[in-house]
Amino acid sequence: MEVEQVLHMNGGCGRTSYSNNSLHQRAAILWVKPILDASIEKLCCSNLPAECLRIADLGCSSGPNTLLVVSNVIDMIQNTCQKLNCRPPSLQVFLNDLPQNDFNTVFKSLPSFYKKLEERKWLEPCFIAGMPGSFYGRLFPQSSINFFHSSYSLHWISKVPKGLVTKGGLNEGNICIAKTSPPSVFNEYFEQFKKDFRVFLRSRAEELVPQGRMVLTIRGSINSHEPLSIFEFLGLKINDMVLEGLIEKKNLDYFNIPYYEPTMEELMELIETEGSFRLPDHQVFKRDWDSSIKEADSGLGKKARAGILSTQIRSVVEPLLISHFGEGLMEDLFHRFEKDVLDHMEKEKCQSIDIVLSLTKEY
Amino acid sequence: MEVEQVLHMNGGCGRTSYSNNSLHQRAAILWVKPILDASIEKLCCSNLPAECLRIADLGCSSGPNTLLVVSNVIDMIQNTCQKLNCRPPSLQVFLNDLPQNDFNTVFKSLPSFYKKLEERKWLEPCFIAGMPGSFYGRLFPQSSINFFHSSYSLHWISKVPKGLVTKGGLNEGNICIAKTSPPSVFNEYFEQFKKDFRVFLRSRAEELVPQGRMVLTIRGSINSHEPLSIFEFLGLKINDMVLEGLIEKKNLDYFNIPYYEPTMEELMELIETEGSFRLPDHQVFKRDWDSSIKEADSGLGKKARAGILSTQIRSVVEPLLISHFGEGLMEDLFHRFEKDVLDHMEKEKCQSIDIVLSLTKEY
Repeated sequence: MEVEQVLHMNGGCGRTSYSNNSLHQRAAILWVKPILDASIEKLCCSNLPAECLRIADLGCSSGPNTLLVVSNVIDMIQNTCQKLNCRPPSLQVFLNDLPQNDFNTVFKSLPSFYKKLEERKWLEPCFIAGMPGSFYGRLFPQSSINFFHSSYSLHWISKVPKGLVTKGGLNEGNICIAKTSPPSVFNEYFEQFKKDFRVFLRSRAEELVPQGRMVLTIRGSINSHEPLSIFEFLGLKINDMVLEGLIEKKNLDYFNIPYYEPTMEELMELIETEGSFRLPDHQVFKRDWDSSIKEADSGLGKKARAGILSTQIRSVVEPLLISHFGEGLMEDLFHRFEKDVLDHMEKEKCQSIDIVLSLTKEY
Repeated sequence: MEVEQVLHMNGGCGRTSYSNNSLHQRAAILWVKPILDASIEKLCCSNLPAECLRIADLGCSSGPNTLLVVSNVIDMIQNTCQKLNCRPPSLQVFLNDLPQNDFNTVFKSLPSFYKKLEERKWLEPCFIAGMPGSFYGRLFPQSSINFFHSSYSLHWISKVPKGLVTKGGLNEGNICIAKTSPPSVFNEYFEQFKKDFRVFLRSRAEELVPQGRMVLTIRGSINSHEPLSIFEFLGLKINDMVLEGLIEKKNLDYFNIPYYEPTMEELMELIETEGSFRLPDHQVFKRDWDSSIKEADSGLGKKARAGILSTQIRSVVEPLLISHFGEGLMEDLFHRFEKDVLDHMEKEKCQSIDIVLSLTKEY
């Protein structure tokens, strides 16, 4: 499986599209806003270019969240420049995701976004471009970017760890690191994550101007040997279908998603050993799987919440699943997911961890 | 009609897609190659940045031609750097078109394009981005681009001239400047073209680095009062359908395409009065409407050539036509076009003019 070919959120704007099911990611953007604001403020105070400020959002995906981040960043630049009583620079914004991402939908929404910017009295030029490619490698010319942002992308690693592909069946019955996975599975995933995250840091360090900054939000875990990820529960449902003979056992045993939830300690150590960045600020958010759904509408019953949660997960992971299991099984799988997920949450305390890192380039 | 909403080539890769019907535009890229090569060579000799060379292709569309131009430019940079015995710079390439353009298809082809670059021993980083927006306005930060290219785009003006919209029926029976158009129609179109082309030149002058260059290929005419454009013939076919009662007369009278074929003299005067650019080189190509089809396959009969020509024109102008006349009439219209176009060419000498301008920023 070439991850770059199949790793993308559900495109378009239908019922199971990512665009219509990215409430949780939107909530995360809001939790992170104070940290983002502080980073932008410092960027403006210490290192505002006279001419053009270049920003990139890595793993932008396609939907209402894509331009929400850009909008937040622009607001904060505007506020800070007002405070500092200086004219804001022009902006060049790069939206990055893998080449399979649905950029067309984002681009079509740009004219109305530019109109809104004008209404909000942002009068400097703002040029929004799309940059297709993997952030596990270089994307921009040397020292050309002032600020990087990435939300909910870096837990997707560049490939399924090699050992899990060659030694098929190593992670029997699971699709990610799970309670029943042997330690070797954790090691395989951890090594791939370390390799990828180091390449990410090195690439961004080359692309950032001196004193450039970045804010990264990553799905993390408290104990990465047992992340209690929502994908572990999805794997249980696939296993149910294996037990009922709907999916071949081997088919599940050979499927692993390229996904790793690091701990804060792992991240801090990687940042320190790579050496390009300081970490002046970081934070951990812990939330119930369905907390953003409850926050958006506190009147929703259990069934409705389970339905939304199921479609959210489906919008994120369906292209990966289809590439391996085929399209026909998806309705059944997510119906099972929806039916059982909140019962599961009552039995086990199911929470997701978001780790936010605010980084500054060292030199 | 908001031109930006409807002006785009047919997307995807089906029978009537632009991607499969852009042979003529491809041929034009080949005729222009010597001029392009000379411009790139001078750029490299006089003004090669040590770090990163930034290039933009304006009106890139979506199909095999999109990356052909980029490929030609890269080859020429590589050749010149070899001759000069210097290391090539890294490249940042911006593909520009209106936000409705099918960028997704282009982006999906990038991984294999990067692979080909490697095979051809281009070893410096090359970062290809998409920049959606109208080139009749700013697209890039101040002094940030080294080289602009645009092929077969600048004859598309930013809107149907105002006078043709308010005074509907002014261009009775036609869809562009035609032999039966009154002089006021020519004036309306010419004024809009002048306004647009001036904005284009001013915007590019702001975006280019000093001594930056551009090469523009524009569909032109010998006498812009009577351009003998292929769209005039298409208008005749729509008029036939009006006479047969298939289309309301008013419907045709209120439809004009945002398209103007300038003469070399008009262009030279506009460039001189705008003042930002010198014009060290220019050239005019004159070709039969079907010459690129004959060149590609000299064995094709009359009927086959007419079919290809019809589908070529359809792939370019269908979204505009559909937005006004609806989808249902297209098969019939292009069937009529195909049936009569080569007879028409035998009666009248039907040729298209391509004007190539090689420009250098003055200051």
